[in-house]
This record gives sequence, structure tokens and C-alpha cells, in this order.
Amino acid sequence: MATQNTSTDPNANLASAQTITEEEIFTAHLGGKLSVELTDPLEDRRDLSIAYTPGVAQVSRAIAEKPELAKSHTWASRLVAVVSDGTAVLGLGDIGASASLPVMEGKSALFRRFAGLNSIPIVLDTTDPDEIVDTIVRIAPSFGAVNLEDISAPRCFEIERRLIEALDMPVMHDDQHGTAVVVLAALTNALKVVGKELSSLRVVISGAGAAGIAVSELLLAVGVKDLIVLDSKGAIHADRGDIAGKKLEIAEKSNPRRVAGGTAETLAGADVFIGVSSSKVPEADVASMADGAIVFALSNPDPEIAPDIALKHAAVVATGRSDFPNQINNVLAFPGIFRGALDANAREITTEMKLAAAAAIADQVGEPAADLIVPNPFAPGVAEAVARAVAKASHK
Amino acid sequence: MATQNTSTDPNANLASAQTITEEEIFTAHLGGKLSVELTDPLEDRRDLSIAYTPGVAQVSRAIAEKPELAKSHTWASRLVAVVSDGTAVLGLGDIGASASLPVMEGKSALFRRFAGLNSIPIVLDTTDPDEIVDTIVRIAPSFGAVNLEDISAPRCFEIERRLIEALDMPVMHDDQHGTAVVVLAALTNALKVVGKELSSLRVVISGAGAAGIAVSELLLAVGVKDLIVLDSKGAIHADRGDIAGKKLEIAEKSNPRRVAGGTAETLAGADVFIGVSSSKVPEADVASMADGAIVFALSNPDPEIAPDIALKHAAVVATGRSDFPNQINNVLAFPGIFRGALDANAREITTEMKLAAAAAIADQVGEPAADLIVPNPFAPGVAEAVARAVAKASHK
Repeated sequence: MATQNTSTDPNANLASAQTITEEEIFTAHLGGKLSVELTDPLEDRRDLSIAYTPGVAQVSRAIAEKPELAKSHTWASRLVAVVSDGTAVLGLGDIGASASLPVMEGKSALFRRFAGLNSIPIVLDTTDPDEIVDTIVRIAPSFGAVNLEDISAPRCFEIERRLIEALDMPVMHDDQHGTAVVVLAALTNALKVVGKELSSLRVVISGAGAAGIAVSELLLAVGVKDLIVLDSKGAIHADRGDIAGKKLEIAEKSNPRRVAGGTAETLAGADVFIGVSSSKVPEADVASMADGAIVFALSNPDPEIAPDIALKHAAVVATGRSDFPNQINNVLAFPGIFRGALDANAREITTEMKLAAAAAIADQVGEPAADLIVPNPFAPGVAEAVARAVAKASHK
Repeated sequence: MATQNTSTDPNANLASAQTITEEEIFTAHLGGKLSVELTDPLEDRRDLSIAYTPGVAQVSRAIAEKPELAKSHTWASRLVAVVSDGTAVLGLGDIGASASLPVMEGKSALFRRFAGLNSIPIVLDTTDPDEIVDTIVRIAPSFGAVNLEDISAPRCFEIERRLIEALDMPVMHDDQHGTAVVVLAALTNALKVVGKELSSLRVVISGAGAAGIAVSELLLAVGVKDLIVLDSKGAIHADRGDIAGKKLEIAEKSNPRRVAGGTAETLAGADVFIGVSSSKVPEADVASMADGAIVFALSNPDPEIAPDIALKHAAVVATGRSDFPNQINNVLAFPGIFRGALDANAREITTEMKLAAAAAIADQVGEPAADLIVPNPFAPGVAEAVARAVAKASHK
């Protein structure tokens, strides 16, 4: 039974979600969630002589002579490795490789379910960026793309950058870019609901980790001009002496009015609040936003502000939860992004491809409304539409 | 149609095998031979909330608190990584990671087909033993066992030894031990056919690579006393100054009569010839063996001596090919060995487990005959019998 629900009574939705019992969850995980199967039956010695020795030697020899045949005659080019070191898993933090594996299996399952791609989880018994990069580069001939997952900031930025440079295949840290793409899609439709334009918005992003940085970069790339990012010490700006790396890069491109302080100072008169940290936002600060405010309280499982409270002051509210309307869920983006990149034989996932993905997701909602700014991930054709848009943007 | 055939006319068998066309082989490899599937359907948001967020967080948290739950609640503990650096692939040699992948996919397919195990190929863009060991150790939380494959000697010995020491899971280089187990099984039944005993045999092994060394070690472990190993320079013995490592170890335990020379000198009067190199053996040397001689000419695709020629002088002849009787095929061993080791939660594959596997394979042939010393791998129950025997031996 689907629990999708467009009611705005959060308690009703919450009760529905709570009908999933702990026993049911643990039973569903017994033995894991994935299996490896054969694409063709192996029923007799003849089949064996084709798929294995001696027949397979002809295929191996052909690839040795003409390496591009590995793309067509192995499974690797349609195989996504879901790679994690277990340092930033859901809201659980640094729980290690083995404990992160159920999440990565789930991610691989979503690649199969939504994009028809093969995917295997690779969890790492190291958190050292050099070792992570070396390890992935060494096993890279085994697969065709890398979905980095749940790797903590700021290491995730360096690891992703170095892997993109080292590998001739799509590499994307989904906690960053998958989130950014879906946020942009949701924002696109929310703006239609409230009748505002991207270029004139005042946007506040709470959180300068993997998601906060990537959302900021994508919104700046698409033309948002007044954007303020908050870390645990408040608004970041180029004059702050305690920031470096990606934070400093963002600081130099954002906060044009040099606002200092927290949500109290920055939300007054703002059009959009995007929460991607676990910091709570006082109701009064949300109440101080501009008319037609948009609130994305994406911290999971506890949003920065309860959606029913936020709705008293905002025109459009979204969360990361499946038991409220407007779930900002990466599953809307990553299957189609990787599928499109692989379909197009892309060597990189560019900003243009991310923007195309966001537009395609937004387009899947026929008539945006306050409680319908993103499509249901189970609606037919979402990943396919994203994949087509991404592949097209890649060819440009 | 199966090409299994107990006829002793090799030309008839060869013709049958040749009905597999190159086009058929390449078509069967298009897109690869494996797929990753879900164990349970993902049909709605409720399913998603169980297999992925928020439900999966409970499983991850439980594993973080109680690490042994990873065995039961992820797929890793029943997942075999088939790992290769592509340095000794079939008869093709050092063809590299990507070109080796079709072979490794085939191997993973056999794990599924014969042992019901999940398996993924991991091919490595490095041939450095330190880097290989480090890489496998770092990704080890992703799987439950390691089948090393087609790694060249002598590096394969060090890599296997270090991985066995570093990992709390079954690790086995199949080119060594899978071959050794099936050879021992075949020899056990061949001895019944010719009415000889292991302890009084004179055995000559041509080849001191991965397979030759492992076969020698297993035969010595099971009580063969007069065993001579030949490398490219002839019989090895402890007085030879040009050998080191595993070869020297074997030299110190074998060749008690200190025979020097090649097959001409060593095969005269020998009971068993086992060829695991590509060196040809002259017919005259085979003709000089004792009555009731046993010849295993295992080089693929070209046996050390054509089986029809060998049969003029030997009582029992086996090859590595599927188009002759008595195919010595690792697929008889490795699926059941890994299955049994994983069933028993074994941390290592011991010599006792290998001997148990060999005995179980031999037992699967009801009435051994000159052209029937090993079971058909497609005969029902072979891998299951091996797995039971291996698990039992592990518990001892």
C-alpha cells in the first residue's frame, strides 16, 4: 500500500508511516536486498563452453586487442558502483563500512528499480582520501560509473574532484549533487506556485556540508544572486577568517549584502529557506520571511521546523520525509542522471547535465501546487525523462 | 544440447564442440553475462521506506552497535568477489584487467549457477602485490569471500598468503587449489580403475606455476611419496641452485630419488603424469611409463599430448577440455568449496576442507571407469555434496 498522501495533516501521515514495524524492516533485510543473476541460462556443457572456457577466451582476446569492446561485451559499462566509507550515513554519522552497507544495498536496488542499471555496493575499510581515491581507481575497470555516497565533508569534495580527474567515467557524490538537482527542481515548481523569479530571490541555506555547498553552487549557476549560506557559526562571507576550501569559494560568490548572524538575521524578508543541516529554526524566524515564502526543511528524520508549523507562515513547504507532501528525495534524480550519462557514454556529469535533470524532474509535475512541487518517484517515466534530458545535455 | 560424450573418438567430440560459432559466442557476451536484481519488489513508497530511508537506518544502527548483524542483514556474507589482475588469463597470459573481465563474469555466473551464491567480478588496474593486497583489504567489508583468479605465479602465492592472514574470510586462488582438488578427485577414481595405491605411486608433474605447485602440495599432503615436479628447466630438486620460494619448498619435499632431466628421464616407469604447463610431451616418453599409466594432459586448449595418442599407452587419460571424456574442470570444485566454507562460517579454507572436497567429488562417480573418473558438472547435487563435505571438515 502506498502511503503517498497529499493531505496537509502531518499527524495523519505520520501515523500511516508508523505502521511499518521494526520487525518488518529487519525481516526485509535478512540475507540482504540484492542478488546477482545470469542474463542467459547455463544448462549444459555447450552453454558453459560459450560463457566460460574455451569460448570466453575469444572475447577476452578481442578486448585485449580492441579495448573499446569491453564497453559492449562486458557488464561493466552499465554497472554503477555505490561507494561509501560510512562516515556520514543518513543522520547516523560515522558508523563505518559494514553498518553503511544496508544503505548502499538500498541505493543499488534503486538503480535497478528506477533506471534498469546494474549496481553493486562497495564499502571501504578506510577513511583516508588518498587511500579511497587509490582504491577506487584500482578497481575502476570493474564498473562504468561511480556513485559516491555518505562520505563526510569536507573530504567528499576532494575525493570527488580527484576521482573525476582520474577516471574516464561518470563520478558523482549523490549527497551533494543529487540533492542539489532535486532542490532546484522543487524550487522551480515552488516559484511557479508563488509567482516569483529565480533572479530576484533572496535565498538562505542552512548547512555548509556536502548538500549545502552543492545546492549553493547549483543555485548560483542557475542565476540566484542573493544567496546566504549558514554554517554552525552563522552566515559565511568572504571576510570571515575561519573558513577555507569549498566554504571560502562559496563565501566569495555569495552573501552580497555581507549579512552576519544566524537565521534571525538572515531570514527576515527572505523568500526561500533551505535547511540541509540538523539545526532547528525558530518559528519566529520563519514568520519573518517575505510573503509567499518557500521553506524546504530537509533534515531527516527531524526537519529543521515541523512542516505544519512552517505552513502557518510559508506558502510552500517541503521536507525529506515520505510521510509529508513534497518529499525532496534524491531518488528522483540519481537513477536518471547516471542512466543518461551512461546512455550518452559521457565521461563526466557536467553542470549542464545537472540543470537538465532538474528541469526534467520539474516538468514531470503537470500542474504545480503548494502540496505538489515534485513528482512521485513511482510515477512512470520520471527516470526515463531525466535520462533523456541528461543524455541530450551531455551531447551538447 | 549437451556435448558431454563418453565416446573415446576425440575427433567426433571435437567436431561437436566446433559447432559453436564465433558469432554465437560474441552475441552471448553482448552487454555482459550478469545482472543485479532485487530480492524483494520495490513497488511503492512504503517499500521504499523499508528498504531505504527511513527504515534502513534502523538496520544500519543495529549493525553499528552489534557488528555480527552484518552477516545476517546484508548480502555481503554470501557474496564472493572474483578478483583478478588479468596477468594469467586462460592460455592468453597478461591481457590486463578489462580483457579478463569476461572470464571473471563467467566465474561469477558459475558461482550463481552451481552454488546459488552471489558473486561479483573485481578486476584490478594494478599488478603490484602490495597494491592488490591493500585494495582487497580496503573493499573487504563489501563481501564474504575472495576467489582469486588468473593471477600469475609466483605473485599469486604471496598475494593469497597475505590476504588469508589479513582477512577473516575464506580466500582461495582457484587456479591453484580448485585445480588441485579436482586433480586429486580424478586421480582417486583413476587409481580405482587401474588398481593402484596413492602411497606407492610415482608421479610426475609438468609445470611449477600456480597449478603445479598446488597439485604437488595437495598430493604430498595426501600421502604421495615419489613425486617429481618439472619446470621449464627440468626436474626440480633441492640441489638446484636456481630456484626459490614455493619451488624450493616443493623441491625440499619431493623428488626423493634426485632425478634430473625432463620427461624422458622422469616418465620412464612413472605411474602418473600430470601436465599443467603448455610444454608438449613426446609420445615416446608416455610410452615409457609403467603399465596402467594415468595421463592428465590439462593444458588448454592444447593438451600436452593429444588424448587419442596418450590412450595408446595409458590406461586412463584426462584433459581440461569439454570435448573429450574426463574433463578436469575447476567448476566441479570451487562452487561447492566456497558454498561449504560460507555455510560453515569458516574463516579459512584449510587443507582438510580441500581433501574433503576432493573425496566428495570422487564419490559422485558411482562406478569409475577409464572414461568416467569425474562427474559431469551438470549432474544434480555435485556442488551440494562438496559443500556439505567442506562444511563438515571445517567444523572439525
